[in-house]
Amino acid sequence: MIGIFDSGIGGLTVVKSVMERIPGYDIIYFGDTARTPYGTKSADTVIKYSVENIDFLLQYGAKLVVMACNTASSVAAKRVAETFDVPIFEVVTPATEQAVKSSVKSVVGVIGTRATVKSGMYEKKIKNMKPDAKVYSVACPLLVPLVEEGWMKKPETKMIIKKYLLPLKVRQIDTLILGCTHYPLLKAIIQRKIGKKVRVIDSSIAVAEKVKSFLDANPEIDRRLGKNDDFRLFVSDITDQFEKTARITLKRKVFLEHVKL
Amino acid sequence: MIGIFDSGIGGLTVVKSVMERIPGYDIIYFGDTARTPYGTKSADTVIKYSVENIDFLLQYGAKLVVMACNTASSVAAKRVAETFDVPIFEVVTPATEQAVKSSVKSVVGVIGTRATVKSGMYEKKIKNMKPDAKVYSVACPLLVPLVEEGWMKKPETKMIIKKYLLPLKVRQIDTLILGCTHYPLLKAIIQRKIGKKVRVIDSSIAVAEKVKSFLDANPEIDRRLGKNDDFRLFVSDITDQFEKTARITLKRKVFLEHVKL
Repeated sequence: MIGIFDSGIGGLTVVKSVMERIPGYDIIYFGDTARTPYGTKSADTVIKYSVENIDFLLQYGAKLVVMACNTASSVAAKRVAETFDVPIFEVVTPATEQAVKSSVKSVVGVIGTRATVKSGMYEKKIKNMKPDAKVYSVACPLLVPLVEEGWMKKPETKMIIKKYLLPLKVRQIDTLILGCTHYPLLKAIIQRKIGKKVRVIDSSIAVAEKVKSFLDANPEIDRRLGKNDDFRLFVSDITDQFEKTARITLKRKVFLEHVKL
Repeated sequence: MIGIFDSGIGGLTVVKSVMERIPGYDIIYFGDTARTPYGTKSADTVIKYSVENIDFLLQYGAKLVVMACNTASSVAAKRVAETFDVPIFEVVTPATEQAVKSSVKSVVGVIGTRATVKSGMYEKKIKNMKPDAKVYSVACPLLVPLVEEGWMKKPETKMIIKKYLLPLKVRQIDTLILGCTHYPLLKAIIQRKIGKKVRVIDSSIAVAEKVKSFLDANPEIDRRLGKNDDFRLFVSDITDQFEKTARITLKRKVFLEHVKL
């Protein structure tokens, strides 16, 4: 099966994109809700948690892993690639590739958690592909709790988004990467506040398309993946709020299974 | 020494109150920054973490423990009292006692995390002491991240506080319990928004006074506590932001020691 993990529930936006782009594949998801969020924690801690999460997914039979978490993708991708023997996808590279392709002026904005922005990974990857690109990054640490509280349409949320985006508007970016799995749930407001002309890149869609191309090009790996439309959703902690957010994100009934790592 | 733990850095408000009320005592603090916050997590998970944290403090020689975390105090106090053999203080009872004493109309408001409010512990304890009291509780899950971001004086924070307090204002409470260790850092705004006539109870001061009375009444336990003004600050994860918040809360230089549980 395809294994997908995230620091919490937000990574279900990636599950949704994978289900839409390559329907029918068996998916196992692990949300580390007992230790969420990762975005405010140190690189060492996020690496340790990522290795444990992938270990869990492999034990359950995952043959291909997607790190849905932007923070984990930014700080732990290299380490997990060295540690494990299966194909592992992260969300930073696919979003970066789409941004570089789409940006006419090569002036790109990135929003993400504190840890993602601090890692500088988006900036490094964009400049590797296009050395003269200008990249401006802003940490938006309050957006994850606002989404988790379901405050997606409150005036305070709009004010906070406007404040976060102001330095990017001033720089006249033409492309904006949503560098956190929670942000697609705020996409409409973000698009309005940054302006209609700015192309907004959703990393959950970008990584799903990357997995699709990979499987098209590697049929021997594709053959090892189950295609019975199975979906199992594991979390390290269960609360009513996590269930509610999971239901809203996937737009369907969900059954959370509790597991202790 | 006196052991104090919290889900993160917020519990340093309790350290500060203890240092002011009973100066000179040796203190060891553990902030579980690798798994913070607790307020959005389930009771089972918070109980498990609390037991592990107290184990750690006892290994380092704590002879008396203060649970600075309101969430842990609300959901884990009974279990840890059964598990361990040292005096363990929690923050709910002392704040409750002060509130009951101070409330003339017996109409008390409580603000806290989602887990604290869900536990109903403040309400239960107040009604045990004063069965005809009216207690109104509001979960304010966004206040912890706002404090951790240092947004204590931003207009958005004031708007969010006003919104959270509105149902308590309507009920005409005369006493308000700050049921989370982070909230004392917002006390001035909270006092302004709820109105000057409302008595605002800070649970960190209440628990420090409780410990003081206990030691006065139990000199044999007091004798076992070191009084060399030692202070050690352990955390399960270190970031610049945690160091900054610790410095702001304690108003002095801090040295964080990293420990893996």
